[in-house]
Amino acid sequence: MSGLHIFPVTGVGPIGPGDDLANIFLAALAAQGDELLENDVVTVTSKIVAKAEGRVVDFDGTEQHKDQLIDQESRRTLRRRGSLRIVETHHGFVCANAGIDLSNTNDGTAVLLPTDPDRSARRFRGDIERATGRNIAVLITDTFGRVWREGVTDVAIGVAGLTPVLDLRGTPDANGRILEATEVAIVDEIAGAADLVLGKSTGLPFAVFRGLRPEFFGSGSVRENLLRRASNDLFR
Amino acid sequence: MSGLHIFPVTGVGPIGPGDDLANIFLAALAAQGDELLENDVVTVTSKIVAKAEGRVVDFDGTEQHKDQLIDQESRRTLRRRGSLRIVETHHGFVCANAGIDLSNTNDGTAVLLPTDPDRSARRFRGDIERATGRNIAVLITDTFGRVWREGVTDVAIGVAGLTPVLDLRGTPDANGRILEATEVAIVDEIAGAADLVLGKSTGLPFAVFRGLRPEFFGSGSVRENLLRRASNDLFR
Repeated sequence: MSGLHIFPVTGVGPIGPGDDLANIFLAALAAQGDELLENDVVTVTSKIVAKAEGRVVDFDGTEQHKDQLIDQESRRTLRRRGSLRIVETHHGFVCANAGIDLSNTNDGTAVLLPTDPDRSARRFRGDIERATGRNIAVLITDTFGRVWREGVTDVAIGVAGLTPVLDLRGTPDANGRILEATEVAIVDEIAGAADLVLGKSTGLPFAVFRGLRPEFFGSGSVRENLLRRASNDLFR
Repeated sequence: MSGLHIFPVTGVGPIGPGDDLANIFLAALAAQGDELLENDVVTVTSKIVAKAEGRVVDFDGTEQHKDQLIDQESRRTLRRRGSLRIVETHHGFVCANAGIDLSNTNDGTAVLLPTDPDRSARRFRGDIERATGRNIAVLITDTFGRVWREGVTDVAIGVAGLTPVLDLRGTPDANGRILEATEVAIVDEIAGAADLVLGKSTGLPFAVFRGLRPEFFGSGSVRENLLRRASNDLFR
């Protein structure tokens, strides 16, 4: 029984500004009796990356303040309905409310997206690789809605060590035919799969993937390879 | 090391009209030395479901014939650029070229989407459950593009035995705060995860998931629970 194995890392406490996520991850992994193997992939939720990077701001819970934060984090509003705004962030993500986590109003704070999630992924990967001597890859994930379908899914907002979009154009399929237009956003499929073992109400920020196919490993960034340019987009 | 395990089922040959997919699946699973356990989830690609259901039509490879097939399979064209058409199918899926697989022009055929993928999922599930005595769930998957992001991902087009959208609204998060608006499209996350072990060029149509959380199991359909009504949609 080969295949892919995905498991969560438990026992991670609250994260604050300046925390060393790689150390925290490795300590929690060891505490549950696991260790990283060569070509494992580690996913990290954007929320704890943002918290470690100090991307937490005061938030008074009002609609006015919310609009102000969204304005600050975005370069363009695409649609607005009631208190929902679909915007394009400075990174180029199209998402609701600029990806700001506004659910912590009890604390009087809001959590922004990391400033440069691809860089965050590269840093976390470098820290882990230096500490363990293993080659691994890293994804930073967040939860976005979709246009045509109900419900949210987790997607990749930063990557290091994986090919964000696997280009199968020109490769023969199982019947020897050439596949026409198949570029697969494997990092988004991985991000969604991570959510299956983490869940949203558990507070688990890390998952480990073991057994992803060798052709997934490579280089590239979410910003360069995964975000559709407005000029290529039929709905913006 | 708990978590989720996903594995492909190999050794499945070409599928034709009238083939019994449940028997074919179970024979291939047994041939690789595996068997289904209680609460496993089986994913099936829409292409072999369509082939088994006889949803294969002649296709002469011309743009005119392509347009005619897309017209026949859709109720509305949302956008058109060059030879790409984004349409709403009769099921309500918004996708390119009505989800028709036009890549088999060597054969002079095209493969349509199953007529009612939720029904196909229920039938496959029933056949498997009767044959094995196990409670399982089933997803039919297909490959769709996204509006804002490059690359395709696999999504669910039919489901039986899972809650398509898991509603976490009103449940407390790890810090005891109430999650505001979190309805998770778990079946799309599962479909994408299946693609990670199947790939597009391998011709593998079946994956098995073991270890999905108990709260994922339930009822509902893709058509009723996952497709966004045009009236709820900010971009149609």
